[in-house]
Amino acid sequence: MNTIPSEKDILAAHQRIEKWIIRTPVLQNDFINKLIDATVFFKCENLQRIGAFKARGAFNAVLQLSDEKKKNGVATHSSGNHAQALALAANQLNLRAYIVMPKGSPTIKKMGVMELGAEIIECENSLQSREETLLGIVKKTGATFIPPYNDYKIIAGQATVAKELIEQTPSLDFILAPVGGGGLLSGTALSVKYFSAYTKVIGCEPENMNDAHRSLLSGKIEVNLPDAFTIADGLRTTLGEKTFYIIKENVNEIFTVQENEIIAAMQLIWEQLKIIVEPSSAVPLAAVIKNKSMFSGKKVSIILSGGNVDLKNTPFF
Amino acid sequence: MNTIPSEKDILAAHQRIEKWIIRTPVLQNDFINKLIDATVFFKCENLQRIGAFKARGAFNAVLQLSDEKKKNGVATHSSGNHAQALALAANQLNLRAYIVMPKGSPTIKKMGVMELGAEIIECENSLQSREETLLGIVKKTGATFIPPYNDYKIIAGQATVAKELIEQTPSLDFILAPVGGGGLLSGTALSVKYFSAYTKVIGCEPENMNDAHRSLLSGKIEVNLPDAFTIADGLRTTLGEKTFYIIKENVNEIFTVQENEIIAAMQLIWEQLKIIVEPSSAVPLAAVIKNKSMFSGKKVSIILSGGNVDLKNTPFF
Repeated sequence: MNTIPSEKDILAAHQRIEKWIIRTPVLQNDFINKLIDATVFFKCENLQRIGAFKARGAFNAVLQLSDEKKKNGVATHSSGNHAQALALAANQLNLRAYIVMPKGSPTIKKMGVMELGAEIIECENSLQSREETLLGIVKKTGATFIPPYNDYKIIAGQATVAKELIEQTPSLDFILAPVGGGGLLSGTALSVKYFSAYTKVIGCEPENMNDAHRSLLSGKIEVNLPDAFTIADGLRTTLGEKTFYIIKENVNEIFTVQENEIIAAMQLIWEQLKIIVEPSSAVPLAAVIKNKSMFSGKKVSIILSGGNVDLKNTPFF
Repeated sequence: MNTIPSEKDILAAHQRIEKWIIRTPVLQNDFINKLIDATVFFKCENLQRIGAFKARGAFNAVLQLSDEKKKNGVATHSSGNHAQALALAANQLNLRAYIVMPKGSPTIKKMGVMELGAEIIECENSLQSREETLLGIVKKTGATFIPPYNDYKIIAGQATVAKELIEQTPSLDFILAPVGGGGLLSGTALSVKYFSAYTKVIGCEPENMNDAHRSLLSGKIEVNLPDAFTIADGLRTTLGEKTFYIIKENVNEIFTVQENEIIAAMQLIWEQLKIIVEPSSAVPLAAVIKNKSMFSGKKVSIILSGGNVDLKNTPFF
């Protein structure tokens, strides 16, 4: 698939992955509805397999490999949810998976990947070391590299989140999604374009790493300062060329929020919705609270991207 | 309704409350399925309105009040989920609600009740003081007392949890539910009897407060020692006559588990399912883990009763 996913591509992706993923529930909460004076729907991808929407893209990519390619397995570099997603997809289809992870990766994430039978290859923390190590593995094993977001099959897979959401909750005025590498946001924008064109799509990111916001303003991919930090660890990446192009053409706006706003929104979701979300997932609700008046009386949906957080290390205990 | 709820009563209850409650999702988890070597379905009443199944019984009772009775409002004594459930039902139907709460009740629970517009009347900690204070309120205001569990309308409301679950997940070998006062367990047993007769029903409680277990053995309602303690705060009550009779006739077994087993199961649910449950909800999973071999290869469902827990005071942080 070398062109931007079409409506047909997304329908095919959903059909392809349906039996491998969870049709995640959409939740509402009285307290939050009252707080925003709107009807807010939470699409719970934290309740997806491996606890994040990334399972969708990984299955969509791996299921399309030729039998020849399947023999040699798959590979990626990631310290986050994409690593577990690819490990799961490979495990379920009986393929080998090689995951390049920086030495300092949390034990809990390594354990998750190992339990799924994937092989971990350690590298240094730099992006250069990650890419070089991955290249070495691909050369040695013949495994296919499955990128985390800048890939049309991955984007089509992530697009199924919004497709499902639109089926579950019609007539939405807004859909908000977090943006890091842009796989989820670009997929969301495409599904909205095809299946619910009047709905507005808003990307949300931390002010401390507002590269997507600046990229939309400047018209080219911007990066973050080397010492920038956000608690929203899933959003520390920058856009790829493919995701940027789709977002530029189809996303209405990028909202940014501060760290304390992310933490407050995260706590609100835990306390009110009784579900566990990682900081990245809380960014859109923080944006809705910050820009409340804009959403008054509307049907607003928020994609909760994942729930992989170390329970012993949360910001509000 | 002065007789044990019939099939028709439970169908009517579900129809009556349907638009007021959430049809809660049923979740599965790869890790837990592998751990038990079974297919385990979690019915998520922690995602119910006010964060617990109690909303069902309260709505079913309040919706059946005559217009005359509605004028004077409703009353109960409770420091737990029934207080919030009754406050919610009253709030939604524009009735007054009087909730008798012991002086030492956690501020967070009082806040929840007050936010729903109910009036809190403080009393001493003893059951005697609770009952006397309630009697005084009922006399003074003419409000109708809505009991927490020993009431057929309440039982019929709680029975809709298992009715829904059976619709969502057919052919279950087992349904496990926690047992405190027995409203949920007796309702569950009735729904299984009417809608899925071959499914076995197992009640689960803390070993430290194993009154239901002992009651089934002795054939009469047993109580707990005055200094007994369990972290499962929702299960500190004993059976009522109505719930005991239904449980005695229709429940296959009561399993008991230790405190550390409850905490471990609670942590497993948070980490794996990415949802927040209160200790009482974790008791059935603890029982399944403890009696693993019995469930091997089976379709097992667990009712997660609620998610109201003070995040700042969890046993595993």
